[in-house]
Amino acid sequence: MKINENYKNLKESYLFSDIARKVNDYKAKNPDADVIRLGIGDVTLPLCKSAVDAMVKASLEMGKKETFRGYGDEQGYAFLREAIAGYYKKRGVELDLSEIFISDGAKSDLGNMLDLFGADNTALIPDPVYPVYVDTNVMAGRSISFLNANAENAFLPLPDENTRGDIVYICSPNNPTGAVYTRGGLKKWVDWANACDAVILFDAAYEAFIGDDSLPHSIYEIEGARTCAIEVCSLSKTAGFTGTRCGYTVVPETLVRGGRSLRKMWLRRQTTKFNGVPYIVQRGAEAVFTEAGLHEIKENIAYYKENARIIADALSRADVRFSGGVHSPYIWLKCPEGMTSWEYFDFLLKRANVVGTPGAGFGKNGEGYLRLTAFGDRGNVKEAVNRIMKLK
Amino acid sequence: MKINENYKNLKESYLFSDIARKVNDYKAKNPDADVIRLGIGDVTLPLCKSAVDAMVKASLEMGKKETFRGYGDEQGYAFLREAIAGYYKKRGVELDLSEIFISDGAKSDLGNMLDLFGADNTALIPDPVYPVYVDTNVMAGRSISFLNANAENAFLPLPDENTRGDIVYICSPNNPTGAVYTRGGLKKWVDWANACDAVILFDAAYEAFIGDDSLPHSIYEIEGARTCAIEVCSLSKTAGFTGTRCGYTVVPETLVRGGRSLRKMWLRRQTTKFNGVPYIVQRGAEAVFTEAGLHEIKENIAYYKENARIIADALSRADVRFSGGVHSPYIWLKCPEGMTSWEYFDFLLKRANVVGTPGAGFGKNGEGYLRLTAFGDRGNVKEAVNRIMKLK
Repeated sequence: MKINENYKNLKESYLFSDIARKVNDYKAKNPDADVIRLGIGDVTLPLCKSAVDAMVKASLEMGKKETFRGYGDEQGYAFLREAIAGYYKKRGVELDLSEIFISDGAKSDLGNMLDLFGADNTALIPDPVYPVYVDTNVMAGRSISFLNANAENAFLPLPDENTRGDIVYICSPNNPTGAVYTRGGLKKWVDWANACDAVILFDAAYEAFIGDDSLPHSIYEIEGARTCAIEVCSLSKTAGFTGTRCGYTVVPETLVRGGRSLRKMWLRRQTTKFNGVPYIVQRGAEAVFTEAGLHEIKENIAYYKENARIIADALSRADVRFSGGVHSPYIWLKCPEGMTSWEYFDFLLKRANVVGTPGAGFGKNGEGYLRLTAFGDRGNVKEAVNRIMKLK
Repeated sequence: MKINENYKNLKESYLFSDIARKVNDYKAKNPDADVIRLGIGDVTLPLCKSAVDAMVKASLEMGKKETFRGYGDEQGYAFLREAIAGYYKKRGVELDLSEIFISDGAKSDLGNMLDLFGADNTALIPDPVYPVYVDTNVMAGRSISFLNANAENAFLPLPDENTRGDIVYICSPNNPTGAVYTRGGLKKWVDWANACDAVILFDAAYEAFIGDDSLPHSIYEIEGARTCAIEVCSLSKTAGFTGTRCGYTVVPETLVRGGRSLRKMWLRRQTTKFNGVPYIVQRGAEAVFTEAGLHEIKENIAYYKENARIIADALSRADVRFSGGVHSPYIWLKCPEGMTSWEYFDFLLKRANVVGTPGAGFGKNGEGYLRLTAFGDRGNVKEAVNRIMKLK
């Protein structure tokens, strides 16, 4: 028996456990301190009424023989795929239902999608980055090249004549930097991928935070994307589904590599290694895409975006340099006075009792940065901002 | 860009589409025929009241800020892992909560578990078999040896001195044959695996159908299994969760291969490529393991088993040879008069308007057999049996 030796090359991440340990140590020494966490990447507002009502109804259906549902199609019920196709259509993107796959979230599909590619491809991954892009490729023994995302390119790297890679990850709006590609920027990536036979894995998990119609929500708004891009999206941040688990992945019929339809390969992968998302959850997700549901989630997103605006506004007044915070729940700030990520983390914890996420945890280009998130409670956000302002 | 070339070696299965085509053709020519399907592997009874009530309650919790749940641990909530540990404890199996991983079903985990093993291992797979055991290994380019399950060994192959393999699949009660290993049989496999450093993937999806306390429900009832076996189970057939999606996988702390803890590797795999099962579904699953829930699902299983008894009784009286149908929802019968699987399928369809599943679809040793399932409606089962008896 030989194990998958590539697992030995995985680096353990102690980012969130180190944060927890430091916060707990601080609280043990300062039991009266009111510590506010602006580091969490999880939503805090409850599910919208439309989704809850739909899931209650679906749960009751499952208890009656006439309305009970057994196995559904692995790629998801047509009712939900139709709702998602309708959501794309509003932005002028036409998808066939066979191109839409319902998933239990972006993380699963981003990891499992790599099944379709040879282990000898090179993955091209931005730095700083959501760590699972790296780990899932390390598990497959794939070589990785990093794309530098930094202040010079506004955290939006573009390809040039020297850019080489087979699978490129683009997350826009970006986690952790909050930066958003323009149509022109994405067009450069699409043209590059089509020219060199690469595949773009486009992570659109934060698309619902985009508030400017000139910015693309989907890579399929870009001409040529249907022959080079897979788009992975999720209701986690769009509709607070982090604990409810539903997302979707689009693999266009026209995306062919090595003479094979990647859509057909993905269908084969999913029908063999997946059994679909719960009927109850799919009904909840369907309700999100109704007129009422979309209105309700828009209010939640507006709440988070107002939090982000309050943080960004305070940072501007404090002359702190940052990106994000407009079309994104993330604010990526430059640690002041040359502090490292962890120095500034400690400084904020001790002096303001505010917890952020050290940028160094997202890659080498994250050193000297800190990520704040807008998913918290409004009162806490205001209080945290007041404290940060007083530090000036 | 290179695709995963192993996908080219996958055989398309036309089993269920061929069945559907034949049935549709027959119905088109005989519009008045009352065709009864005894081929389906999906449950038909609704979810038990305890599970429905729990999921309604959990859905409502998700709609209130105070009780809303975001991300849970990838390996599942402790409340459900405790319920499952309690279920095992009743049979004398002690599990640590860290050894239990909540999944969205056996199919996902049986496929994804292969991530942990080198591609150059050999998989040892019984024939006839649940097709995904084969396909998931073909996708990884792994070589496969087949274990002959046939009438001579009562469809329960055992290892001998020539048996070689690194990953061995055991499904008991078996799909499709309905055969169940005794403790003695499983002990031979456990001793073999420990002696030759192999890993057993034990598929216990049908354990709840076992009605004889002397037969093992779990491989961990066998001494030595904790150093060689991973057990995958599901609520799909136990509690009708085929469309609700919840299962569990046990990886013992003491299972070490290549110097690494497979439990820790699986935890790393799941935290990297999975985000857990919906909170609502985990609450439904927890309710299944309460006293009331267990009583309710026992009634459903008794219903299916009575269906199986009616079919088995009729086949006995008709002098048809079969296995299964006692501790299993499956009846695996020898096609009479030397007919092939498809000949007998056609014969039953035309002469009795009853649909089974041709055994040849499960592997070469399935030729000459037909699978009937007990998941149907009682009235249909009785009518089907009456028609089959009249053929004699």
